[in-house]
Amino acid sequence: MVEKQMTIKNDRFLKALRREPVDCTPIWIMRQAGRYLPEYREVRAKAGKFMNLCKTPELACQVTLQPIDRFPLDAAILFSDILTIPDAMGLGLEFLEGEGPHFSKPVRTEEDIVQLPTLDPEQELGYVMDAVRLIKKELHDRVPLIGFSGSPWTIGSYMVEGSGSKSFSNVKKMAFNTPELMHRLLQHLAHSVSDYLLAQMAAGVDVVMIFDTWGGMLSTPDYHAFSLVYMQQVVRKIRENTAFSHIPMVLFTKNGGMWLESIALTGCDAVGLDWTIDIGSARERIGDKVALQGNLDPAMLYASPQKIEAAVADILNRFGSHYGHVFNLGHGIEPGIDPEHVSVLVDAVHRLSRR
Amino acid sequence: MVEKQMTIKNDRFLKALRREPVDCTPIWIMRQAGRYLPEYREVRAKAGKFMNLCKTPELACQVTLQPIDRFPLDAAILFSDILTIPDAMGLGLEFLEGEGPHFSKPVRTEEDIVQLPTLDPEQELGYVMDAVRLIKKELHDRVPLIGFSGSPWTIGSYMVEGSGSKSFSNVKKMAFNTPELMHRLLQHLAHSVSDYLLAQMAAGVDVVMIFDTWGGMLSTPDYHAFSLVYMQQVVRKIRENTAFSHIPMVLFTKNGGMWLESIALTGCDAVGLDWTIDIGSARERIGDKVALQGNLDPAMLYASPQKIEAAVADILNRFGSHYGHVFNLGHGIEPGIDPEHVSVLVDAVHRLSRR
Repeated sequence: MVEKQMTIKNDRFLKALRREPVDCTPIWIMRQAGRYLPEYREVRAKAGKFMNLCKTPELACQVTLQPIDRFPLDAAILFSDILTIPDAMGLGLEFLEGEGPHFSKPVRTEEDIVQLPTLDPEQELGYVMDAVRLIKKELHDRVPLIGFSGSPWTIGSYMVEGSGSKSFSNVKKMAFNTPELMHRLLQHLAHSVSDYLLAQMAAGVDVVMIFDTWGGMLSTPDYHAFSLVYMQQVVRKIRENTAFSHIPMVLFTKNGGMWLESIALTGCDAVGLDWTIDIGSARERIGDKVALQGNLDPAMLYASPQKIEAAVADILNRFGSHYGHVFNLGHGIEPGIDPEHVSVLVDAVHRLSRR
Repeated sequence: MVEKQMTIKNDRFLKALRREPVDCTPIWIMRQAGRYLPEYREVRAKAGKFMNLCKTPELACQVTLQPIDRFPLDAAILFSDILTIPDAMGLGLEFLEGEGPHFSKPVRTEEDIVQLPTLDPEQELGYVMDAVRLIKKELHDRVPLIGFSGSPWTIGSYMVEGSGSKSFSNVKKMAFNTPELMHRLLQHLAHSVSDYLLAQMAAGVDVVMIFDTWGGMLSTPDYHAFSLVYMQQVVRKIRENTAFSHIPMVLFTKNGGMWLESIALTGCDAVGLDWTIDIGSARERIGDKVALQGNLDPAMLYASPQKIEAAVADILNRFGSHYGHVFNLGHGIEPGIDPEHVSVLVDAVHRLSRR
């Protein structure tokens, strides 16, 4: 398997994740296969429901490759969703126009939790593995492929709320009033996420990332108790599997800037940073225990090319001359961004970081 | 004026803000006069538009006193809104049902900014000062009265976006592409906010607080350049006025946990903390330079009385035996909270912190 990774033509991203020397800082962009690309919108329009795009390996492959064909990005990321697991558990996932994800059967009671199935990823989530295999084939090892999952807390929050939320009152009610129930759900999800990521690894992804979108809604002790501990379990379970010990793992908690030290101690290889964190002080706090991924304000892509360049230079400067930096936005790219500005960004990162 | 503050019967809150000994930790609750109270909903229903409530001193006074009459809270806060300034500037503020604030005339161009009037708070915002005077009269010095304003950045964000936003793309476009324009707007707002808070002080408030709801949407350097520097200007301008040097100032940046040290250096007396920050490590980082206000997760009020008590005990423990703690939620109380749970909270804070 290590040999397989060696065959990847542009391996800057993998090297940076290992804090090894690189010729320049690698970059990929969260949600790089997304609505800001006209070619994506075209496929999306034809696909009908959003989940059709995820569930049809040919389409998922097509949109995964679109940004790689257009920009000299250093990694591809599987086109999928962080809610594939609860969808496969039969909770009735729908994406409502302008409202985001919605589950017709939210998980609220002990009975709901007990009834959740244990997934076999190659079965119920076989479409994801098929997409990975197809993308790997079509990618021709140009760049590494990133697989991913939502974190147990983030997936669990959606399952309990039944949708996105501002206050997360339902999931917090469960966490605060019946923590044993919350932990039972999160434990189940930690197993599901581990199995899911291991299956993605077996199918061929070169890196995995865990998106903890909602961990930052918790207080510091609750973040550690309900989110971080389960991400750590996932990391450990995956690391027990020596066949995949060469596959780097990236953890990203949005609004997790205060907890970077704890995140770095999970055994992950890299920590994703949102844009509010100063990457220089993040580096100072964490040292070279892990690589850092981030962290341009996604809204900076609305600015002029000169401003984008200056912002890139600032982040590269703040990170300093160490190895172990993967450039990215601090959150997903927004639909209104001009693709030309993405070109400017990718070029600026490579050019300004050239050794 | 100092003597006037001396006459306040329950002055625990003022003492805590000065880091002086108190018999127990004072508590007030952000948005304590709000929809979770049936008596508030009654007045609100009769008032028609939300701004009528703010603009009718008798009604503002009535709802300000409701939580004080119901709970043994240690401070009252003026019932008003953080958008009174742009409303008085003629931007056409409306509160749309379920959508929050909306301006019919957002500020987007140099011309828009140049045309913004300089407010005389006793004129255009006279209803606020009338409310302060009436509340002070009706409060009979039972507890101190808090006045407040939005921060220049937060008010400016609403003015440029025309409403709340997820991405803040319009205001960030202005900040990144035409920073000189952004700074001109923020400079104007810093003057307006200073004048507004000075007028509230002259009308009788005992403490002022600045709510920086959207500073946390900025990167670290942008937070310092576009939000913090203008809050600092406001603090300095107010502190130049020796008549009010005894009136404590509290700054609160939501999602500002990474910047506490900088906030504490503005010259404010206290820093408000959202619930994601560990108040123990906040205290360690800041020392006793300022008092700290916070920081229970607002969703904890959905939990059972026993859980609420345990969460209160945890925060009191984390803060430790120092003086200079004002208990509060980490964000406004939510409409769905049972008022009985607020009773439990207030009682727990007083009882568990009793010296």
